[in-house]
This record gives sequence, structure tokens and C-alpha cells, in this order.
Amino acid sequence: MDRTVGAVDTEKLCSGDRRALAKAITLVESRLPADQTRAHQLIEALSQRGCWSRDRSIRLGVSGAPGVGKSTFIEAFGGAITASGRKVAVLAVDPSSPISGGSILGDKTRMEQLSRDPNAFIRPSPSSGELGGVTQATRAAILLCEAAHYDVVVVETVGAGQSEVDVANMTDFFAVLMQPYGGDGLQGIKKGILEMADFVLINKADGDLIDAARRACQEYESALHLSHTLVQRQGGASEKQVLCCSSLTGEGIEAVVEAIQMRWRHEQAHGTLTERRRRQSVRWMERLIVEQLPWRLQQSPLLSNTLRQLKQALEQGSITVEASVEQFYDQLLSESNMKS
Amino acid sequence: MDRTVGAVDTEKLCSGDRRALAKAITLVESRLPADQTRAHQLIEALSQRGCWSRDRSIRLGVSGAPGVGKSTFIEAFGGAITASGRKVAVLAVDPSSPISGGSILGDKTRMEQLSRDPNAFIRPSPSSGELGGVTQATRAAILLCEAAHYDVVVVETVGAGQSEVDVANMTDFFAVLMQPYGGDGLQGIKKGILEMADFVLINKADGDLIDAARRACQEYESALHLSHTLVQRQGGASEKQVLCCSSLTGEGIEAVVEAIQMRWRHEQAHGTLTERRRRQSVRWMERLIVEQLPWRLQQSPLLSNTLRQLKQALEQGSITVEASVEQFYDQLLSESNMKS
Repeated sequence: MDRTVGAVDTEKLCSGDRRALAKAITLVESRLPADQTRAHQLIEALSQRGCWSRDRSIRLGVSGAPGVGKSTFIEAFGGAITASGRKVAVLAVDPSSPISGGSILGDKTRMEQLSRDPNAFIRPSPSSGELGGVTQATRAAILLCEAAHYDVVVVETVGAGQSEVDVANMTDFFAVLMQPYGGDGLQGIKKGILEMADFVLINKADGDLIDAARRACQEYESALHLSHTLVQRQGGASEKQVLCCSSLTGEGIEAVVEAIQMRWRHEQAHGTLTERRRRQSVRWMERLIVEQLPWRLQQSPLLSNTLRQLKQALEQGSITVEASVEQFYDQLLSESNMKS
Repeated sequence: MDRTVGAVDTEKLCSGDRRALAKAITLVESRLPADQTRAHQLIEALSQRGCWSRDRSIRLGVSGAPGVGKSTFIEAFGGAITASGRKVAVLAVDPSSPISGGSILGDKTRMEQLSRDPNAFIRPSPSSGELGGVTQATRAAILLCEAAHYDVVVVETVGAGQSEVDVANMTDFFAVLMQPYGGDGLQGIKKGILEMADFVLINKADGDLIDAARRACQEYESALHLSHTLVQRQGGASEKQVLCCSSLTGEGIEAVVEAIQMRWRHEQAHGTLTERRRRQSVRWMERLIVEQLPWRLQQSPLLSNTLRQLKQALEQGSITVEASVEQFYDQLLSESNMKS
């Protein structure tokens, strides 16, 4: 077996080398068909090298509206992880605008302390690319961080619909950060996001906001228990937990780390963690198959030729879109069908 | 040739029967594989029946933030079309939340006058379904409205990213409605949306807002001419037009209808309309091929079996997601490759 795949030294990566990890993530983020093939080969090589101790890491999704303090929370949370001698990786999913390519996150100076920590690895999201591509790359990046022996992998996302669902479907737990806005706190809740949350974290529980945060905590708790006592996301149901914390003073951060760890250990012991991850794998296979279709077809001379002819017919107006799709699938599936 | 396809009477549909049209749209909106096959057959049958006089209708996308007055504008605009003896169809694209399935539009009492007009056909968007599915159904619904001899087909969407791009890619022109918010009007612009706009319409140019609307009109015009003089969307570039109107008083509505018609006639005469539509067809074929892959695979016994085996392997943890995707494509494309 080659030690180097796609210019990435797998031995270095598995021994936790940060440069090898960064290089590997750049490879999985690439949209070039040749790089995607190499990325698959890399993951296969890492798998065969036995770089993954099965289900050793905690995969945590962190979401919340802009301004709620995700970066400062992750910095405090990550600091608590590394202080206990473990390694933390932070990946960001940034649903760039499909049109302008603009970045929603993109603040380079975030997490200053954590970024200097030798036991922390922070990877901002790629600055461009399609939504699907970014999320797909993030899932592969989690695997790479695990191969490099990171104990906790945090995937950060902003409250923007599909990317949130995707992150929940690639992590063990999904945490949503909220602000302690007194009595009207519940008004701002995005119902869908809270449905997915395993942990609801009321951040900024400090200074003048301590009382408001405690009230918000209670309100969320009773609201959640009234409406949904179970986490309604893919991969089994469990109770939601509502916790208060302050990224500023550090108050409650340890308790958040503890709560997540306890839940994780419990699920690992009962096999539910492994089960969920495998169900997630099935979903990702299905998704990758669909997403990769265009470049896979390019690699088949016969099908590329069929597509070219159909495009010509459409450009000449001699065929409907619907008929072109039918003809394409007749070609693609006829062989497979006949052999069954 | 059968007159009835998928329970839709094609002769009635082509003669403009509203119930046949409504039934046909319900068919194309269905996510059931059997219905999708029938929907393709229906469109093919209509094509063979010669129901489409080539490029006869105007396809107009209308977008704008909630509250900007899209419904009242479309009601006034549609009324101006029917007053001149022509038929107008209004389709809504509603990007339902992927999580809660909630509706962004969904106000049933909208466009009361137009909905009573015998020369108008209003179709609210399906209340659930995936984003891709809704948009795909909308494209087919446009074709069906054209088969039923509607002269103008308006596709309404809310300012929500991908659905906007999709609507622009299935229409001849894309109009964006704006409010005359005096000097700070430009601040609220979504850059990406304006990049796609062929027509920028300053609505609510009435009462106290007349002067503000005129100023906004001038501001948009100079801003657009400074930054982008050309419409940067798929299917050729043309100059953007900025117009003021009031859906309340009707002032300027006729001018909007005229401007759109003139542009349409000009493009039709020069062949650019047909060219754009054909380029759009190529894109839709590519997209439908990707979107239909899951249910097409279900129809192949051999490939369904391969998928089932790969899922089992993933559930047992005996294979990586990446390797499962490789194995699937080896199976799908091996035959086609060998024959080239």
C-alpha cells in the first residue's frame, strides 16, 4: 500500500500531523473529478491502515443565529477540551450564496486563543463552491480529523436551513445556541432547528443577563417538554437538554462538556451511537451517489456521447426535456435491467 | 395516440379547459415514481399533439421580499393582461422549510379579483415536498399552462436563494419588486437577486410615497448602470430596466406590461428568446437526470439489489461510504464503458 495518496502522507496524518491533515482536507474540498477520486482513495487507504479506532471521537454540531456567540462559545468549549489533555478540531460549514459566492462567516480573527492551542485544529469553510459540495467535504473532513486522533470534532454552522439538517446528519449531537432575551426569548426560536437539537445552550449567562438566562433556561425547558420531549432527528430519539453557560466567564462550560460526554458515553455503551452513525452512512452513500452523477457520467465515453447528442437535440428544439431524460435513462439502465 | 394520459384529457387541456389543466399540474407535482412517469408521458403526448405553438407565451418570474406587494402587483398586472383579452396564469414557487414543512406564502385570500377572472388561472404552490421537486414541477406546470393557451405565465417566488435562481432559469424574464424606501433603498438590495433581474419594479409609487418612489427609481437606475449594465443571468445579457408603478392606483402597470412585451417581441424577432429557452432546456435535462436518479434506480432490479447489499455492508460497518459509492458506480458504468 502506498504511504502517500493524493500527495497526502497517510502515516503522518494518522500520527496527527497538522500539515498533513490540512492538506488532506484541501483535497476533499476540491471539486475537480480527479481530486475527488484521490479523496476516495485517501479515505480508503486510511481505512485500510486502521487509522480509525471505531467510534472514538465525539462529533458535535453547533448552530445558532449570527451574533449569538458561536465563536466565543466554541473557543471556551474547545479550551475546556484541550485543558483536559484532549484534542479538538473545529470545522465550519458556510452556506455561501449560490449567486454572489459571498461568505456569511468569514471573520478571520475568530477564536484567537484556540487557534494558537497546539491541541486544537481550526478549519474555516471553503470560501466558494456549491452548498452540497461544502457539506460533503465537511463530512469527509470529520473522518480525516478522526484519523488524526482528534477526540472531539465540532462542526459549526449558521442558521440557514439545509446546511443545518446536513450537519445534524453527520454528527452525533446537535447543539443550538440561544440568547437569554428574557420573556420574549421563545419568539425568536426557529422551530425546525430546535426540533433537531439534542442540546439547547443559553449562552451569555453573565453580568446583567444572569437572571434572564436562568428564566430563559426554564422557559425553554418547559416549552420543549410541552411540545417535544424527544429529539426528532435522524438516528433515534433522546431527551433534549437545556443548559445555561457563559463563554465570557467560563461558567457552565465545563457542565456542557460533561453533559455531552455523559450522553455520548451512554450512547456508546448502548450501541445507539454506532447504530446512528451507520444509518447516517447509508444516507450519505445515497446522497453522494446522486451528487457525483454528473462527473461520473463524464468518465463514461458512451454516456457522455449520449448526453452530447441529447443536448444537441434540445438545442435544435427537436425533443422535449422530458423525452431527453427518458432516452438517457433508457440507455443508462437498459443493460443493468436485462442482466437481472 | 391515447387522448387520456395519466387521467388527464389532453384534448380538453389543449382547448384550455381549466379542470384538465389543474389535474395535469397535480400530476406533475406528485412525487410518486409512477406519477412522474405518467407526467413525462403526458408532456410527450401534448408535444406530439402539437399543443405548443412554438414560443408563443411570455414566461415571467416575479420576486421580491415578503411585504413588498407581490400579490397585489400580480393581481394588477394580471388584470391588465386579461383586460386586453389575453389569458394569464400565475404559479407560485414556495420554498417550504425542509424541516417543518411550513409555508412561507400560503395566504389563501390573495389575488381575490384575479382568481374570479375567467381568463386567469391561479395555482398556489404545493404545500409540501422538497425544494427541488417543487421547482421541477413548476417548470412542467409552465409547459402545461402554455398547452392550455395561456399567453402570459407568471411564476411568483419569495426572496430565498436557490428558488429564485431556479425561477430565473425557467422564465424569459425575471422581475424584482422593490419598495420606495427613500434614501436607504439601496441598502436592502440583495445583490444576487438584482444581478438576475431583467426588470426592477419600484412598487407602491402612490400617496405619500410617490416622490420617494421616483427618487428610488433614479437611484436604482444609476446604481445599476454603474455596477452592472448587463443582466448577468443564464441565457444572454440584456439591459436592465427600472420602472415605477402602483398596484393600488394602477399607475405605471400598463407601462410595465408594455415594457415586458416589447422586450419579449424584440427577443423573439431576433431569435434570442428561442436560444435562451433551448439553453434552459439543456440545464433542465441535466438537473432532471440528477434529481430522478433515486427513483430510476429503484426501477432496476439489479441496481436496487446492489444498493441493498451496499446498505447492509454500511450497517454492518464493513465498508466505508466512499468505497460503497465507488462500488456502486463500478456496477452502474462498467457496461456502458466497455461498449464505447
